[in-house]
Amino acid sequence: MALEFKILHQDKESHARAGRIITDHSEIQTPVFMPVGTAGSVKGVHQRELLDDTDAPIILGNTYHLYLRPGLEVLKEAGGLHRFMNWNRSILTDSGGYQVFSLAANRKLKPEGAWFSSHIDGSKHVFTPENIVDTQRLIGADIMMAFDECTPWPCDLQYAKHSLRLTHQWLDRGLQRFRASDPLYGHDQAFFPIVQGSVYKELRKESAGYVAEKEADGNAIGGLSVGEPAEEMYAMIEVVNEILPADKPRYLMGVGTPVNILEAISLGVDLFDCVMPTRNGRNGMLFTSEGIINIRNRKWMNDFTPVDISGHSFVDRQYSRAYLRHLIISGEMLGAQIASLHNLAFYMWLVRKAFEKIKNGTFTAWKRSMIPALSTRL
Amino acid sequence: MALEFKILHQDKESHARAGRIITDHSEIQTPVFMPVGTAGSVKGVHQRELLDDTDAPIILGNTYHLYLRPGLEVLKEAGGLHRFMNWNRSILTDSGGYQVFSLAANRKLKPEGAWFSSHIDGSKHVFTPENIVDTQRLIGADIMMAFDECTPWPCDLQYAKHSLRLTHQWLDRGLQRFRASDPLYGHDQAFFPIVQGSVYKELRKESAGYVAEKEADGNAIGGLSVGEPAEEMYAMIEVVNEILPADKPRYLMGVGTPVNILEAISLGVDLFDCVMPTRNGRNGMLFTSEGIINIRNRKWMNDFTPVDISGHSFVDRQYSRAYLRHLIISGEMLGAQIASLHNLAFYMWLVRKAFEKIKNGTFTAWKRSMIPALSTRL
Repeated sequence: MALEFKILHQDKESHARAGRIITDHSEIQTPVFMPVGTAGSVKGVHQRELLDDTDAPIILGNTYHLYLRPGLEVLKEAGGLHRFMNWNRSILTDSGGYQVFSLAANRKLKPEGAWFSSHIDGSKHVFTPENIVDTQRLIGADIMMAFDECTPWPCDLQYAKHSLRLTHQWLDRGLQRFRASDPLYGHDQAFFPIVQGSVYKELRKESAGYVAEKEADGNAIGGLSVGEPAEEMYAMIEVVNEILPADKPRYLMGVGTPVNILEAISLGVDLFDCVMPTRNGRNGMLFTSEGIINIRNRKWMNDFTPVDISGHSFVDRQYSRAYLRHLIISGEMLGAQIASLHNLAFYMWLVRKAFEKIKNGTFTAWKRSMIPALSTRL
Repeated sequence: MALEFKILHQDKESHARAGRIITDHSEIQTPVFMPVGTAGSVKGVHQRELLDDTDAPIILGNTYHLYLRPGLEVLKEAGGLHRFMNWNRSILTDSGGYQVFSLAANRKLKPEGAWFSSHIDGSKHVFTPENIVDTQRLIGADIMMAFDECTPWPCDLQYAKHSLRLTHQWLDRGLQRFRASDPLYGHDQAFFPIVQGSVYKELRKESAGYVAEKEADGNAIGGLSVGEPAEEMYAMIEVVNEILPADKPRYLMGVGTPVNILEAISLGVDLFDCVMPTRNGRNGMLFTSEGIINIRNRKWMNDFTPVDISGHSFVDRQYSRAYLRHLIISGEMLGAQIASLHNLAFYMWLVRKAFEKIKNGTFTAWKRSMIPALSTRL
């Protein structure tokens, strides 16, 4: 097994569980949030800050971006992404499917794979379920993802059905390549299938069943948080998690707000990733335990109190809200650095707190008390 | 005296001197380089990195930028720039003259002062020698600069003469306001006049004499490194330093490359500032003791050795050249952060080394050995 997963505590009032994943690179307490390091860097954040201030046990890399830049040759010669970026804890890579459909140009979807032009230089490429496994072997991710089509929202039933068939075929081909290939750098790699099916319960059930049969080390739920109402997302997670094996980690891809994360934890999800803490941070949005701050707002202009008095990173006490507002308004890089690190440290605190509350048997009450605060606009 | 200056060692083979400035905020070993914190932030660098990795005893703030954003009201309410940005060592502010002429629109120069429109929102403002003193009182800089006109290059003699007369009149008015006003935050403030005169020796002599008579706590040389050949710059520094009092610190504004700095130290300059380490760093230029690296160059693509094996900041050992190249090429913020911090730490190392060499009596030989390396393109 490339990955060991153990559930340590099961909440009695919800499907939330507190567990531990062990990879060859780190021990990961779940629920966990994975900071997004798109092109081998979590934007604006030094690796030592990721360690010291967020204590993230695992980060995410985007296969599409890494494949285009620095490219596989450099990554291979470096000895994989861990060494290239000097990150010794775990890394999960997505499969590039989402980026091919959201970033690349001239894309053509065929049963064999996806043809596309690079958004950087227009060069032509093809991703197949097989070469995406090879690519993730070269990157050296501890957890690799199956190549899938992430359906947009809204998406008609016919398209969703057709797409799901393709995603399942691709899964089988990816799995076959995964089983026929070996890790390159002396550490093991896991492979997670992805449940799709848009917002259609029947398709989601079918997909979850199909995925569950593979008995993979962990399973992912994709195609959510793409514009659909949160209630629909939660409904899909519920349906899917009834079918996905309970003793394997469940990863909800690309989600979400702090509220989304707490709700999904209560539905039995273990892993999360999202660009929100860094991307929204760069735009001046801060997540705190008291609510959301839009630091561009005039009301913070003369607020010389710390960024977040109960914050969890060094920036929270070193800088004031007025100073951070000034930096963001002025387009100073340091503003983006501060807000990104603050938000990541907050997200990591939130999932660690969830672990604790599940362990203590008080998760549901805590979640109920947190949700109004988390959605408040300060 | 707002500022204490002591020459500790005088080089025998050049005009270089090693000294110490003491302000109410810090002890500053000279020669010193001041990182540029334009709008209250050294771009891409956290305050704690400035302390831990560059150990800069003094940084520079731009009055023009700070006046426009965050503005004087916020700075005053914060208790000055030191508190606003949480920087407890010294700060020098320029007078805004240079930015009015290089950044602002619709500028009109009159004997009373300079009228201009903000480059940010087009709002109209006026800087006078008097209100620039008031502004720097509000900012709370340990060292304030006189309002001057920084002549462009090339500049005809007639214009340079006329401009110099204005700069001298403005100096007198600034000094008067300085003497008639008090610091606001409990720490003392010094006021440095600026020698101008373009590349005309006679004008430079006249200006240096005019400035010397003021018996200020320190004196600055402005209007250089604006495009003229380096030899002309050195010639002007030489002429001016023969006249400026030897027992007061001399500040060469906006200079320059590592080679410029060593040459100017040998001509008796004590303080420097320049955007080069951060601005060129953001573009991928690294200064090292072995030479200059353009990290965008293909030759670094597969160089997995540290950014600078003999470097002086934490980034030098944590990241490889190949990784830094990838970040800069990909436009990742972290690339700018790494290169900026590396360059600043290198500049600070360079001036500290100069201090040591002056102390040991080996400065000139060391400078001679360093200059070919510093100009090498690696």
